[in-house]
Amino acid sequence: MRPSGRTADQLREVSLTTGFARHAEGSCLIRMGGTEVLCAASVEARVPPFLRNTGLGWVTAEYGMLPRATHTRGDREAARGKQSGRTQEIQRLIGRSLRAVVDRAAMGEMSITLDCDVLNADGGTRCAAITGAWVALALAFRHLVKMNVLKTVPLTGQVAAVSCGIAGGDAVLDLDYAEDSSADADSNFVLTDGGGIVEIQATAEKTAFNEAQFQELLNLARKGTAALFALQRQALGD
Amino acid sequence: MRPSGRTADQLREVSLTTGFARHAEGSCLIRMGGTEVLCAASVEARVPPFLRNTGLGWVTAEYGMLPRATHTRGDREAARGKQSGRTQEIQRLIGRSLRAVVDRAAMGEMSITLDCDVLNADGGTRCAAITGAWVALALAFRHLVKMNVLKTVPLTGQVAAVSCGIAGGDAVLDLDYAEDSSADADSNFVLTDGGGIVEIQATAEKTAFNEAQFQELLNLARKGTAALFALQRQALGD
Amino acid sequence: MRPSGRTADQLREVSLTTGFARHAEGSCLIRMGGTEVLCAASVEARVPPFLRNTGLGWVTAEYGMLPRATHTRGDREAARGKQSGRTQEIQRLIGRSLRAVVDRAAMGEMSITLDCDVLNADGGTRCAAITGAWVALALAFRHLVKMNVLKTVPLTGQVAAVSCGIAGGDAVLDLDYAEDSSADADSNFVLTDGGGIVEIQATAEKTAFNEAQFQELLNLARKGTAALFALQRQALGD
Amino acid sequence: MRPSGRTADQLREVSLTTGFARHAEGSCLIRMGGTEVLCAASVEARVPPFLRNTGLGWVTAEYGMLPRATHTRGDREAARGKQSGRTQEIQRLIGRSLRAVVDRAAMGEMSITLDCDVLNADGGTRCAAITGAWVALALAFRHLVKMNVLKTVPLTGQVAAVSCGIAGGDAVLDLDYAEDSSADADSNFVLTDGGGIVEIQATAEKTAFNEAQFQELLNLARKGTAALFALQRQALGD
Amino acid sequence: MRPSGRTADQLREVSLTTGFARHAEGSCLIRMGGTEVLCAASVEARVPPFLRNTGLGWVTAEYGMLPRATHTRGDREAARGKQSGRTQEIQRLIGRSLRAVVDRAAMGEMSITLDCDVLNADGGTRCAAITGAWVALALAFRHLVKMNVLKTVPLTGQVAAVSCGIAGGDAVLDLDYAEDSSADADSNFVLTDGGGIVEIQATAEKTAFNEAQFQELLNLARKGTAALFALQRQALGD
Amino acid sequence: MRPSGRTADQLREVSLTTGFARHAEGSCLIRMGGTEVLCAASVEARVPPFLRNTGLGWVTAEYGMLPRATHTRGDREAARGKQSGRTQEIQRLIGRSLRAVVDRAAMGEMSITLDCDVLNADGGTRCAAITGAWVALALAFRHLVKMNVLKTVPLTGQVAAVSCGIAGGDAVLDLDYAEDSSADADSNFVLTDGGGIVEIQATAEKTAFNEAQFQELLNLARKGTAALFALQRQALGD
Repeated sequence: MRPSGRTADQLREVSLTTGFARHAEGSCLIRMGGTEVLCAASVEARVPPFLRNTGLGWVTAEYGMLPRATHTRGDREAARGKQSGRTQEIQRLIGRSLRAVVDRAAMGEMSITLDCDVLNADGGTRCAAITGAWVALALAFRHLVKMNVLKTVPLTGQVAAVSCGIAGGDAVLDLDYAEDSSADADSNFVLTDGGGIVEIQATAEKTAFNEAQFQELLNLARKGTAALFALQRQALGD
Repeated sequence: MRPSGRTADQLREVSLTTGFARHAEGSCLIRMGGTEVLCAASVEARVPPFLRNTGLGWVTAEYGMLPRATHTRGDREAARGKQSGRTQEIQRLIGRSLRAVVDRAAMGEMSITLDCDVLNADGGTRCAAITGAWVALALAFRHLVKMNVLKTVPLTGQVAAVSCGIAGGDAVLDLDYAEDSSADADSNFVLTDGGGIVEIQATAEKTAFNEAQFQELLNLARKGTAALFALQRQALGD
Repeated sequence: MRPSGRTADQLREVSLTTGFARHAEGSCLIRMGGTEVLCAASVEARVPPFLRNTGLGWVTAEYGMLPRATHTRGDREAARGKQSGRTQEIQRLIGRSLRAVVDRAAMGEMSITLDCDVLNADGGTRCAAITGAWVALALAFRHLVKMNVLKTVPLTGQVAAVSCGIAGGDAVLDLDYAEDSSADADSNFVLTDGGGIVEIQATAEKTAFNEAQFQELLNLARKGTAALFALQRQALGD
Repeated sequence: MRPSGRTADQLREVSLTTGFARHAEGSCLIRMGGTEVLCAASVEARVPPFLRNTGLGWVTAEYGMLPRATHTRGDREAARGKQSGRTQEIQRLIGRSLRAVVDRAAMGEMSITLDCDVLNADGGTRCAAITGAWVALALAFRHLVKMNVLKTVPLTGQVAAVSCGIAGGDAVLDLDYAEDSSADADSNFVLTDGGGIVEIQATAEKTAFNEAQFQELLNLARKGTAALFALQRQALGD
Repeated sequence: MRPSGRTADQLREVSLTTGFARHAEGSCLIRMGGTEVLCAASVEARVPPFLRNTGLGWVTAEYGMLPRATHTRGDREAARGKQSGRTQEIQRLIGRSLRAVVDRAAMGEMSITLDCDVLNADGGTRCAAITGAWVALALAFRHLVKMNVLKTVPLTGQVAAVSCGIAGGDAVLDLDYAEDSSADADSNFVLTDGGGIVEIQATAEKTAFNEAQFQELLNLARKGTAALFALQRQALGD
Repeated sequence: MRPSGRTADQLREVSLTTGFARHAEGSCLIRMGGTEVLCAASVEARVPPFLRNTGLGWVTAEYGMLPRATHTRGDREAARGKQSGRTQEIQRLIGRSLRAVVDRAAMGEMSITLDCDVLNADGGTRCAAITGAWVALALAFRHLVKMNVLKTVPLTGQVAAVSCGIAGGDAVLDLDYAEDSSADADSNFVLTDGGGIVEIQATAEKTAFNEAQFQELLNLARKGTAALFALQRQALGD
């Protein structure tokens, strides 16, 4: 029995609310249980120096957490004067995950930055950020099509992410903070709606795990992301 | 006629929602028209070095703005590695304003930090932060009373803030971004429910103003804060 | 009776010495009692990016304090690696105050930076900086006229500043450090010789103050700045 | 055919030289083809604050790259004033990987820092760092046993890492820079000699990959680390 | 003939004014021609960690330059967020030079920091800083004797510094900015009144120089510092 | 008798190995006893802003030390976020020393950066860096001649450096760490093969020294650098 009463393969309650960030070209407030991340897409008509004159666009992400999104207050990164290694690791992951489903040549030389800010944290913030950021990105692309800046939405598919772990000896889906902090292994799967693997990060927290266990985690992730893909489409009104 | 259609002495629609930050000892999401600030109070059982062994408590604030809270995306301060002068000025103001209505001896040696994060910006964010932070602070104190950490709520009154300005030659209450960016003078008034002045910041943006104009601004501020005090009490269920 | 033996409406002894910074286009060493600030104006033939091709000039300020300008040595901000919030707040105020009396269109696309460095501190350094910086700025403009870079001095008036406070229950003019650190309320008034208000910053240090008290502070400030305007003209040889 | 002429499952030439860092309690210079990483273990008789009085030891890592370890010179991180996100990501990975085979209770309250500095880079530096750092760590533990600080070496096994990727449509082992920069997928496997998985990081660079491909990568990693485990034992003289 | 009309072995006009920094335990404003440095000594009743419980005192220095001390305005180091290599090099030199004539055991566990701030620069600022800082230090020690904190002044002698260079083929004493910027060689000599050498820094700016030239520079330095030692004693009223 | 058993005028064993940094245009690993510095030259086809359109080239250096190059581990400067004053002082010295033997007009508008990284430290690292960096620079110039970028090697001579000190009352050559940390005086001489003096840095660590002692140090340095010049030529195959 999981602390939350969920079954091993049960996601927390998920909601995707669009339009929360009023000025953004696309935005999505994603809630997965007690985790709440505001994802906002900002379009700029230029690319970083290494892409100039390549005809390719750029999609990148920044990640932050409000100081009191957590049980005890954390330092404000702006006040400390630098982003932690964890923050940088997460924002690089979000950017890579989104780029895996973007046709950057069709996009042309423009940049989209996805700001993913955690308002409330209860485990799985990086996965929630990826799932929500894809919706914000899709909305921004649709906005650009409507404005006649782009002809079609340059997305090759959907991407979503979910965490899985081994807790109490069992493989379980979508860990909350209580499970995450005591899990034997923790993993994040970024998958596409076409069945592809975009990124796997699996870490043994205490002792190494084996291939059979890894396979169970992957199976749970497939199941969880299938539900998330449906919710993404629903949020977009498709 | 104001761009928003409001009369000179009319506040924007205001709402104060408590409990948004789930882990905080007190929190309030304040909306003033298109401006939205999440205020979260965090209690710590120690004071800064300069207050050790004085028997006095400490109340302070930190302020931030999500990068896409504004019309065009701003730099993330954590990524830039420092807080702007504007940010520091605002968070110092919020802290000073709240301390003016706290009995720090009755509070004893503990600290409360008010994190004020702007989710959406449309002018007047520092004033909204003060008004909302007072509610978060009051909730945190009530929580400490309930937990038997404090005997009574060590507040000597309410504090709220509102901006006033001279726009199109007229004194107007509660400027939104469109008015603020073209105003001839801009001012922020931090007042108490007992009629006291906690802080006045009045700045001529283009040309100096005179005492009669200043008096009009102060009168509007009294009117505006009177409404805010009522809303604060209502948010606390009083 | 004030600690210094002055009457409530009496300024400290003030002197304005020009030319102290030998390389600067204009400079003024202002002494107000034990407070001593060196103000130096530097002209550059370009403007910040946001003003390019607007035809407008720029006037800005930087503020610093020598580590042992104060009773006990303070950290050197250059060694600590950042300017404090107080420093940034003050230098923004100085810049705003000066710009209120500059015709930036007549000035054309050039920048003048006023460096205000406190050599000795005994209260009221930001006000002394504004009053002295105006003299340095006027000298720099006269130099540019003499060099045929400008046709006339693009100043629309004089600006000066003075602090007032409520100490021992009474409104008093031009607080020194001893008064400032124990005052009930502290305010800075930036006024023009034409009677205009450029900036008011009034803060209740302990308890809120009322309108009548505020009016007294403003009256003292008018009296104090009247004397400062005369001393500024005298320093310029007018 | 791979650019280097190697077969798909062939490691580059590997050598592990101990004792290069003369002052370190344990050190290993690992060469994998053109990649060369100096790993040095430093013992300190204290633990970070979060471990005080827990009886547990700490093993951590720092990673750096000499500016001209690469084809074109990179910025020196010390001169730029901060470590990149990539650097932090890598050093966190090295630390986690080593801790997975350390019995931190048997170690007691002491810290060991593994400095992994890349002298020459040709792909796979993070994996080489893990494999070499394990040898440096083992040597440091043996030194502590010889000095009678520890009774036995508190290692529960060996850990080594290798990169695998999909290049030109095929799964290949131990990518060099030329392969890495054009691969379709890139992965790092951190495995134990007991067959356990410590960490998997698999990333689709261009398009998502499938499970069958992932399985091939894992099989190659098992083969590659088997060879590395033998070389580690040989370097230790076992 | 030198640009200033001085003979090869002629110092600029030198003055040493004590007491300029009113709060400091000792201070000296040194003027050498157009160079003007304010040196202030601050006493603290503790030593840096590496000296705790050694019974030894510490003397150190910090150096700064007002942004408009120079012909064209330089960046403010506090605003840039770091001290330049030049600044650090100079403040380390000042500290070392002073420590060479201090009996740190007789001083006991206390620290004295010499803040050397350049108000106007015309070459030779580091040498002026050393000569002036010694006076400020001596005054601080005398103050501590008067306060009964120390029994005697723990100085073993005087230290002063002067720059010499090869300009236009000739060895000359006490270079001003015009000479310094075009000199073939530049050197700084820190000497004691007892004839000892504390520090020599000699640098060929364009082409290497020879031993005979070096000897000439040293002879000039002896002559120049002899005059400075007399002025130091005079400033102290000896 | 010296701790190492060397005679007063005896260098430690020196070796200069070229080509260690595989990607660099020129590199040299210099060993002087237990001190080991990797010097790598990087060529770039542009100059810093202050040299643009002057026709002159630029040669500069950066210096670093691996954290465990020393007896006890030092902080990693990249992690601390800034280079120490010592590091900056050394890298400025290396750059100046090399520029003294470069014909920067013949070099044309290009830059060469010498990265000098200490792998193992046992005293005299800055001198070893200069001696080794000259070899790396010479190799880079020869490479540019071979590539037809330059017609001839734009070096006007050789430069090498050695430390000398007064230890146990005697002048000795090439101090190792044990001698250096207890020496009465410490000096670094940068000399050319033509007999010229490029830089002298001589510092009294405890008490001032006299001219006769200084002369002895210089004589030892001439002897030591003569041997180093021969080894440099040998390393280049001349």
